Amino acid sequence: MLHNLLKNENIVLASRSPRRAFLLEQVGMQFEQIPSHIEENLNGMQPDDFVLHCSNKKAEEIQKSHTDSLIIGADTIVVLNNEIIGKPQNDEDAFQILKKLSGKCHEVLTGVSILFHDLQLSDIAKTKVFFKLISDEDIKEYISTGEPMDKAGAYGIQGYGSQFIDKIEGCYFNVMGFPIPLFYEMCRKFKSE
Amino acid sequence: MLHNLLKNENIVLASRSPRRAFLLEQVGMQFEQIPSHIEENLNGMQPDDFVLHCSNKKAEEIQKSHTDSLIIGADTIVVLNNEIIGKPQNDEDAFQILKKLSGKCHEVLTGVSILFHDLQLSDIAKTKVFFKLISDEDIKEYISTGEPMDKAGAYGIQGYGSQFIDKIEGCYFNVMGFPIPLFYEMCRKFKSE
Repeated sequence: MLHNLLKNENIVLASRSPRRAFLLEQVGMQFEQIPSHIEENLNGMQPDDFVLHCSNKKAEEIQKSHTDSLIIGADTIVVLNNEIIGKPQNDEDAFQILKKLSGKCHEVLTGVSILFHDLQLSDIAKTKVFFKLISDEDIKEYISTGEPMDKAGAYGIQGYGSQFIDKIEGCYFNVMGFPIPLFYEMCRKFKSE
Repeated sequence: MLHNLLKNENIVLASRSPRRAFLLEQVGMQFEQIPSHIEENLNGMQPDDFVLHCSNKKAEEIQKSHTDSLIIGADTIVVLNNEIIGKPQNDEDAFQILKKLSGKCHEVLTGVSILFHDLQLSDIAKTKVFFKLISDEDIKEYISTGEPMDKAGAYGIQGYGSQFIDKIEGCYFNVMGFPIPLFYEMCRKFKSE
């Protein structure tokens, strides 16, 4: 398991997300968390390319100053009908995003990158999330909890937002921000190389 | 949303599960937690009947001493090929259970019961959980974390166990022990009656 597989590595999580740190702590990993500052510029990229581009960039930025560490980069996006939906700019934006997601199925993609010296592995987890039909009143109540503001797609699956999710198909942890099972597979591959 | 819908109720969660309490706290609910002590005796019942029987019994027991409260009962079971898999008795039992689940899809069922005076509502959430193939070494490492022992199916989806889950289909919170989205629907129905 991860806590034994990586116990001798010096690990840096190149992300400011408290949810990613929480998930890695839950599987007993020890690491340092250092946010990276990259420009997330779409430039007409497709969702798959974009999310890998971002997770790679985040890891590469931190590797420059931590050359002997195993660096983990990750980026999560919400995609509806091939359109990437980012974090809301304000309450009105959050309302429009949640209206769009209501009653529909969208996809959550997380790109994961592992860098160690000149070894590089990256992969994507994809999960389908089916939203219930949400009333305008519920959307307003939800926005007033403050939960949507720092999250892609304007919702968090693990808090108040849990009430809106009809079902998911795929990895739950991916929707929370970091696909632990995929990461474990990637680490085993990395260790065998 | 739940925290507004139920804000005037005196709520008792008839369960000792810290995970159920956590999930209800996460959606802003206020409640008292009182474990109920029922005999979970299968008596040849089918999984659906059994899980509803248990959630009803738990709620009914607590209602006797809390006649003016809204009582929430819940029971979660793991089902593989129509066989109910309970909590492991010891490490060896946990090993056998996890060997059985490895590489296969099982179902997690949670029965939810709401009692308030003579009103009674109950329903079941079902989620498919697809396990990866797990090596004996990983099973042993997992058992040594102590996580399997108090959990139906000998795993917890939210901790070290997350590494074993290939994907799920349905409600994640159900697998954690309490299907929040179903509960919200039941509460809206309850409020409209």
